Amino acid sequence: MGLESGKSGGARGNPSDSGMQIAPLPDMAALRRAAERLEGKAVRTPLLESPPLNAALGGRLLVKAEVLQRTGSFKFRGAFNRLSQIPPEARAQGVVAFSSGNHAQGVAAAAQLLGMPAIIVMPADAPRIKVANTRGYGAEVVFYERATEDREAIAAKIIAARGATLVKPFDDAEIIAGQGTSGLELAEQAAARGLALDAVVVPCSGGGLASGVALAFEALSPGTAIHTAEPEGFDDTARSLAAGTRVKNARGGKSVCDALLAEQPGEITFALMAPRIASGIAVTDAEVAHAMAVAFSHFKLVVEPGGAAALAAALAGKVPVRERTVAVLCSGGNVDATLFRRLIEDAA
Amino acid sequence: MGLESGKSGGARGNPSDSGMQIAPLPDMAALRRAAERLEGKAVRTPLLESPPLNAALGGRLLVKAEVLQRTGSFKFRGAFNRLSQIPPEARAQGVVAFSSGNHAQGVAAAAQLLGMPAIIVMPADAPRIKVANTRGYGAEVVFYERATEDREAIAAKIIAARGATLVKPFDDAEIIAGQGTSGLELAEQAAARGLALDAVVVPCSGGGLASGVALAFEALSPGTAIHTAEPEGFDDTARSLAAGTRVKNARGGKSVCDALLAEQPGEITFALMAPRIASGIAVTDAEVAHAMAVAFSHFKLVVEPGGAAALAAALAGKVPVRERTVAVLCSGGNVDATLFRRLIEDAA
Repeated sequence: MGLESGKSGGARGNPSDSGMQIAPLPDMAALRRAAERLEGKAVRTPLLESPPLNAALGGRLLVKAEVLQRTGSFKFRGAFNRLSQIPPEARAQGVVAFSSGNHAQGVAAAAQLLGMPAIIVMPADAPRIKVANTRGYGAEVVFYERATEDREAIAAKIIAARGATLVKPFDDAEIIAGQGTSGLELAEQAAARGLALDAVVVPCSGGGLASGVALAFEALSPGTAIHTAEPEGFDDTARSLAAGTRVKNARGGKSVCDALLAEQPGEITFALMAPRIASGIAVTDAEVAHAMAVAFSHFKLVVEPGGAAALAAALAGKVPVRERTVAVLCSGGNVDATLFRRLIEDAA
Repeated sequence: MGLESGKSGGARGNPSDSGMQIAPLPDMAALRRAAERLEGKAVRTPLLESPPLNAALGGRLLVKAEVLQRTGSFKFRGAFNRLSQIPPEARAQGVVAFSSGNHAQGVAAAAQLLGMPAIIVMPADAPRIKVANTRGYGAEVVFYERATEDREAIAAKIIAARGATLVKPFDDAEIIAGQGTSGLELAEQAAARGLALDAVVVPCSGGGLASGVALAFEALSPGTAIHTAEPEGFDDTARSLAAGTRVKNARGGKSVCDALLAEQPGEITFALMAPRIASGIAVTDAEVAHAMAVAFSHFKLVVEPGGAAALAAALAGKVPVRERTVAVLCSGGNVDATLFRRLIEDAA
């Protein structure tokens, strides 16, 4: 796969700020190949809008409903794209991922479709629903104690013992290419309706989704500004983009967005995002809860807190919608009923 | 529009059981024309499934997510198809409908798109959210007192004064043809995936949706059994189909399914359903609440009680899924947060 020859090393960031050689970056051709692999496997999620909400906002707001993706989040796209490229001779040994959330389910579902064993390393206190869902996709779950055990060491032991392939959550060219297919679809769906998007807002944790979407729009709609949305206190991507180098979140922060708590952007994802993301936005828990309530009432979608961060940024006016056309990705819907009930009540 | 020449007057019902002449029945050609009119206006709603739920059910269950339709229910389809055929010279006088629910929003949104005035006659105690949504689509709302005023008389007065066109909720050939486009899409989506559907279950009130879906499947997948789903105590369609003649619900029943409380099937809808519906199913409030919770957790969809009746029938085993492939329409998602929160809690 060729290095992206476009704007990398551009004004807003330097892909080799670490001074080290980084892995090859995915490009638009990689996204196209990912889209072919996902054809008939991933849901082509709808692009929805609400005329009454548009009237209230004085602009046009579109929601890419990635909560309807297989496994309830966009993570299936990257996982399937990555796993389908594991060579036949390595498939029987299976894959390993560590995640208590959406990546676990994406990898498990992709492995099941491809007939590969999957081992997911999860904290012993992971929500039962996520354990049950992961097992529902046929994966083996290996627990570890957060306080006393190192999940990476456990995964490494499994890899050594079984010859399994590690599937990273975001900092992997084929994971990024897979996630980027959601942006490719979004650009195509907008174009099919004759819409020129002023901005697209993407929930961001490690940056796999945001960098993939940015690649797609660079090729298909370069005039569209791409923004990341992160929880306050976990806006490492926003601050890294501003600083031109990767920075970490301070320890001890709290956010309701359990899916968006990565410590810092990935190496590959930051190299892709730095020249392509217009700015990073931080949203509060209250803004997220309000966005979940709007998704409930206007779009009939169940969106988890992290999945609602981009919608929150738009509704809070942090990415203006008035007299503009803005699309947001609602990237996941895996939320417990108890938390969902509390958040939409608080926001009502 | 020609009379349906197929199975009408068949074994399970007689379309002219009233002894009177009935209006022309819509046919497959009318559905095709409706689909052309709705192209680019209605959402082509996705057909979703959940592999873990399938594994638990031992079969394959597909959900046609009509909650994602414009206005949050299938009603937009029929309303737009009907309104788009009002001749140019009658458009300025507008349309009138009486409804406190999904039909109101469907008519208001269709009228707004077509640049026609819409007047919706609503009970003075209608939920504020439904009044706000209807106004959000640009409609004028005229209130009446349930106890002392006759909504049909009020509508008749508006029609006489303004020359507006009455838009019936279900017993109208073009409304039925519009609703049937959801079945046409469902049949096409299933065929595109190589699925042979054993059964389709459709929430049923007056029968507009069920009769339209039945028409589509008669033409495109005649081996698929079509079932209606109604609330217990409001299973007039089930009992009418069994009796071979239209019967009414007993007064005084209660159901959480506010959208499915029609007193009896329509004349046209019954003529269409009688020879084409395999059987009518009744579901309890508890089964409906459970279905709403499953739609929340497995499909990330907000489904209102009436919209969940067909899913409830399948999950309760009243339409068996085991070793079969069954599709259900989730027909609407317009539910207040308070009720939604209570029902998914009760069902958890």
